[in-house]
Amino acid sequence: MPFTSLIEEPRCQIVRTLEIVGEKWSLLIVRNAFRGQTTFSQFRDQLGIPSDILTARLSTLVEKGILEKRSYRDAGNRQRFSYHLTPAGEGLKLVMAAINQWGDEFNPSPHGRASLWLDTSNDTEVALEFVASNGGPVSRDDVHTIPGPASTVQW
Amino acid sequence: MPFTSLIEEPRCQIVRTLEIVGEKWSLLIVRNAFRGQTTFSQFRDQLGIPSDILTARLSTLVEKGILEKRSYRDAGNRQRFSYHLTPAGEGLKLVMAAINQWGDEFNPSPHGRASLWLDTSNDTEVALEFVASNGGPVSRDDVHTIPGPASTVQW
Repeated sequence: MPFTSLIEEPRCQIVRTLEIVGEKWSLLIVRNAFRGQTTFSQFRDQLGIPSDILTARLSTLVEKGILEKRSYRDAGNRQRFSYHLTPAGEGLKLVMAAINQWGDEFNPSPHGRASLWLDTSNDTEVALEFVASNGGPVSRDDVHTIPGPASTVQW
Repeated sequence: MPFTSLIEEPRCQIVRTLEIVGEKWSLLIVRNAFRGQTTFSQFRDQLGIPSDILTARLSTLVEKGILEKRSYRDAGNRQRFSYHLTPAGEGLKLVMAAINQWGDEFNPSPHGRASLWLDTSNDTEVALEFVASNGGPVSRDDVHTIPGPASTVQW
């Protein structure tokens, strides 16, 4: 079920993002796209998602600019389609990694970690942290959210 | 509606995190907790959430260790309760900021930004980035996800 706006055109970026990728299957399709999957059958088989729901979610993710639909044809076969992360889709890497990192830290599986995030230029693990505009580290405890110029509420 | 497990006990941290905070109202309650809200009436009035749903979501967030329920009593009034982020709840700051940052970058509101993330020790904006174990910056393009030791699938 798509995320329903609280108001006609939400200004909060958290609400706006959830409207696009806040649905569970949508986020898992994007997760699997980061794992290198591109085809309908790969998503269906790995996620166990019903075909009609997968069709609908892929269509929405294309429409919202997260995935790009490309056609291809293997020799002797009919035309098929594949799905690839757009720059906006690639931008969700930080959201995925943040969700993953929180789980590792605060809700670990008794089996251990099922996925890692690596700097593949040197095969070492990375973490997400707040940084200042000069790139320097900022303590999480010092970071707070305040109303922006478009906010209609105060807090 | 709570997020439904794909398997009995999911190992993927993204799935495990979504099971706790993947529901739209739950994430918005946490968002408002980061804005400093603590009481039932604050959440209800700001979010426009039906009372029965708010009761259920607050109860789940307490049960899952995201919020801590405290009792208090104003002079002459009956006992009331307030809700406060636990350390695990505070840990969601990075998830919130990641979702917020993606919206600013790839799906901006025509009205501008409704919230900002500041280092309040010096009132400057911060960003989320991947860093190496020595704290040095890592290019997003170099970061990829690979199966961890507990993975039951390859990609």
